[in-house]
Amino acid sequence: MSGAAALEAFRRHGGRLAAAAAAFPAAPQPWIDLSTGINPRPYPAPAASRMARARLPDPEALRALEAAAAAFFGAPAGRVTAVPGSEAAIRLLPDLLGARRVAIAPDTYGGHAEAWRAAGAEVVRRPEAAEAWVVANPNNPDGRTTDTGELLASAALRWTIVDEAFVETAPQLSAAAYAGGRLVVLRSFGKFFGLAGLRLGFVVADEDVTARLRARLGDWPISADAIAAGLAAYADTAWADRTGQRLAHGAARLDGLLTRAGLAVVGGTPLFRLARAPDAGAVFLRLARAGVLCRPFEDPQLLRFGLPGRPAEWARIAAALSGDLP
Amino acid sequence: MSGAAALEAFRRHGGRLAAAAAAFPAAPQPWIDLSTGINPRPYPAPAASRMARARLPDPEALRALEAAAAAFFGAPAGRVTAVPGSEAAIRLLPDLLGARRVAIAPDTYGGHAEAWRAAGAEVVRRPEAAEAWVVANPNNPDGRTTDTGELLASAALRWTIVDEAFVETAPQLSAAAYAGGRLVVLRSFGKFFGLAGLRLGFVVADEDVTARLRARLGDWPISADAIAAGLAAYADTAWADRTGQRLAHGAARLDGLLTRAGLAVVGGTPLFRLARAPDAGAVFLRLARAGVLCRPFEDPQLLRFGLPGRPAEWARIAAALSGDLP
Repeated sequence: MSGAAALEAFRRHGGRLAAAAAAFPAAPQPWIDLSTGINPRPYPAPAASRMARARLPDPEALRALEAAAAAFFGAPAGRVTAVPGSEAAIRLLPDLLGARRVAIAPDTYGGHAEAWRAAGAEVVRRPEAAEAWVVANPNNPDGRTTDTGELLASAALRWTIVDEAFVETAPQLSAAAYAGGRLVVLRSFGKFFGLAGLRLGFVVADEDVTARLRARLGDWPISADAIAAGLAAYADTAWADRTGQRLAHGAARLDGLLTRAGLAVVGGTPLFRLARAPDAGAVFLRLARAGVLCRPFEDPQLLRFGLPGRPAEWARIAAALSGDLP
Repeated sequence: MSGAAALEAFRRHGGRLAAAAAAFPAAPQPWIDLSTGINPRPYPAPAASRMARARLPDPEALRALEAAAAAFFGAPAGRVTAVPGSEAAIRLLPDLLGARRVAIAPDTYGGHAEAWRAAGAEVVRRPEAAEAWVVANPNNPDGRTTDTGELLASAALRWTIVDEAFVETAPQLSAAAYAGGRLVVLRSFGKFFGLAGLRLGFVVADEDVTARLRARLGDWPISADAIAAGLAAYADTAWADRTGQRLAHGAARLDGLLTRAGLAVVGGTPLFRLARAPDAGAVFLRLARAGVLCRPFEDPQLLRFGLPGRPAEWARIAAALSGDLP
């Protein structure tokens, strides 16, 4: 595969390690995945018991998880619905809300536009012209933020969907406490807690949207393992506090590496950094040949970097970024 | 809770052990759950690795699971889509197929009618008057079967959705090999393989339905644990063969217990038995007080029984059915 073709293949989503290994067969194993914004040091979640895996999840356990999540989010009890990943909610909402014209804040996670287009909606630029507005807060990939006041003002006029997939490192930004009416908030479990493979997310919305969403999901939307992990993690605020500090330190350290390698850090959150460089394509390929996957975008000067985890990962990335490769 | 109220609470779905324990606080623990048709001796599936739980499932792993499932079903490769439980597919199909009038074969799993009504469709009795026909094959709870020829004839005229949640014990009934056009087949992983808590099911359909379904699901519809378990289980045809025989023996043994207790076995599959008794309500309550949950229906003379697992369960059920309680 040519360098340009390889780059193209990784622009849509991060996390495609198998494709990366195929495209760069000479790269050292195991790959280091910086192509997503998932915490590389996951919450030490219990697995579901053998018995829980063997049975349909009990509705009472699901409601208990939703209550624990509501408490963590500061959201009203009864307005929180668990979904098999916030991506599932992103895909369900267009039909559920029924808006035919949606504005999506620019330069954001591509799944939103895909979902609305798949449902036949028209995607426009300005919320004033739309029946629904989608905002990621903080935004992925640039980390820009939107005030709760602006979100509430929008929700007085139209459906306003706030994707808070990365809000745990800046919880004061969250609008979850105000969800209701036409304000719908999406939360992700797997990114901050580092367990994206469990597929767990939440929708915070009023009683009517919640009831219709639950009718679309059926009685057993998430796995026993997701319930067990979420129940433990959302109750462990001490872990969340420590993790917030650790991620902030990691982000600062990564910024140092990127800056010394000639990239300009132009945005991000503690879970990912957005960097600009005139030769970003060459940086992507240099890293890929060292077994490090980062995330390219349509804008050929931008790259996004998640945080490394173990010390050996930091060392390999530092060497690859500085061009100091074996 | 009165006996009548307790019965009412368990008519909609099986599996509600927490509610059962609350309604019958004096019953012995742990409860024995015969209220579903889930194999009580699950496939010894590997858990996902720590690394797989921490990452978004790789699209390549998902496609490999779908290929393994297609081979097990005898279905065309590329027509099989993994979903987070077949219930998720049941809830998505009404909007996806767009039929406004649906016929649902009588006395079947209630989730179908719930899903179509939630999508605003009219549920009618006769397929001749409908744009879609839903059939469970074999049917739950009575085990009645429908010939592939009848399904194909229907699919020539309208959407025909075949819920094969319990087909593994009678694989010759499956229409999965013929899915395509207007024939859509649903498969469940958790029932035969005894791992309902993982939330894994499949839709077998033509390329157009498959593409639209995948657009509704997003790129990561199922968990890393579901992928790991499904990949192992669908490749293990020796386990499936042994399990089919074991379930048939278990069903015959359960029939013996039920018959000796004065119930008439009127239908079922090897994963569940449907029994009739004039005093079915009293039988339900007697079993519940012994910590055994079975499944009542609108028809007050019917009860459905899943298979017990361990020897101690068989003994407690035999004692409770015969009235020989401590």
